[in-house]
Amino acid sequence: MNPCDILYSSIGIIHSEHSIAEKTPIQPVYAKGCKGYMEIFPEYAEGLKDLDGFSHIYLLYHFHQLPKAKLIVKPFLQDVERGVFATRAPCRPNALGLSVVELVGIDGNILYLNNVDILDGTPLLDIKPYTAKFDLHAVKRNGWQDEVDEHTAQKRGKRGYKRS
Amino acid sequence: MNPCDILYSSIGIIHSEHSIAEKTPIQPVYAKGCKGYMEIFPEYAEGLKDLDGFSHIYLLYHFHQLPKAKLIVKPFLQDVERGVFATRAPCRPNALGLSVVELVGIDGNILYLNNVDILDGTPLLDIKPYTAKFDLHAVKRNGWQDEVDEHTAQKRGKRGYKRS
Repeated sequence: MNPCDILYSSIGIIHSEHSIAEKTPIQPVYAKGCKGYMEIFPEYAEGLKDLDGFSHIYLLYHFHQLPKAKLIVKPFLQDVERGVFATRAPCRPNALGLSVVELVGIDGNILYLNNVDILDGTPLLDIKPYTAKFDLHAVKRNGWQDEVDEHTAQKRGKRGYKRS
Repeated sequence: MNPCDILYSSIGIIHSEHSIAEKTPIQPVYAKGCKGYMEIFPEYAEGLKDLDGFSHIYLLYHFHQLPKAKLIVKPFLQDVERGVFATRAPCRPNALGLSVVELVGIDGNILYLNNVDILDGTPLLDIKPYTAKFDLHAVKRNGWQDEVDEHTAQKRGKRGYKRS
């Protein structure tokens, strides 16, 4: 390992109805009603205490199909080339994914989820609560996303959309 | 490496006025006016294209002081033991940090930031835009945080607070 290397280990596996990357919704907001669940490895289950009080949680996970990293990409919502850090595309230098999903319930080390935009079998790295105190920010500018109307976003962001 | 291991590499370094972990604000919302900047390693700078259009960005980073992982912790806002995944405490199984900061400007591979709650010298793993389309969720329940009044949160969350 070189000095910049950082080693993590998955704490569980995310399961969903999405088995094909190109047909997976690009964000939870376009995955309404897509159910899923996570299995947390038993050695971490104690850390789930009190999590069931939160309606929404951040999932941090690893894009395990390892799309080749690119610095310039066309985001799913628009046919214009953008810097990868100005998008949520999976082909990033570090294949880290971030989604805010709805937490439906917890049974032991199994978490039931809604609005899941994540591929089946994805390794989970961390869970954090998404809260009104910490996570609602007064966005002033949305960059290129301000050019994308809601109709287009809904069409392109949903499951099953394939860029022609 | 075992099959659960995941290797990342930092893409830059975060600089801030916070040099002592115990005096660092716990979240950007308690770090208003705390300036900082990030140096992105030159080989990744092309990926910053178009990012300057966004007012807020997610930073994903590595808690490099590696607090010993615990599954049960007392969150900074409350003297009650909670599961670590129900908190944003740094002592997590994978030492992954997540903050939404204000992006003030970009000059080449330097990004100027506001509301920085991150220790000076922290290795950066990823940047993602925080947007109105993707990241504002209708939170219904905030778990134990609903028990913490705003006055207490402001006092405990800010820089300089030390638990007695």
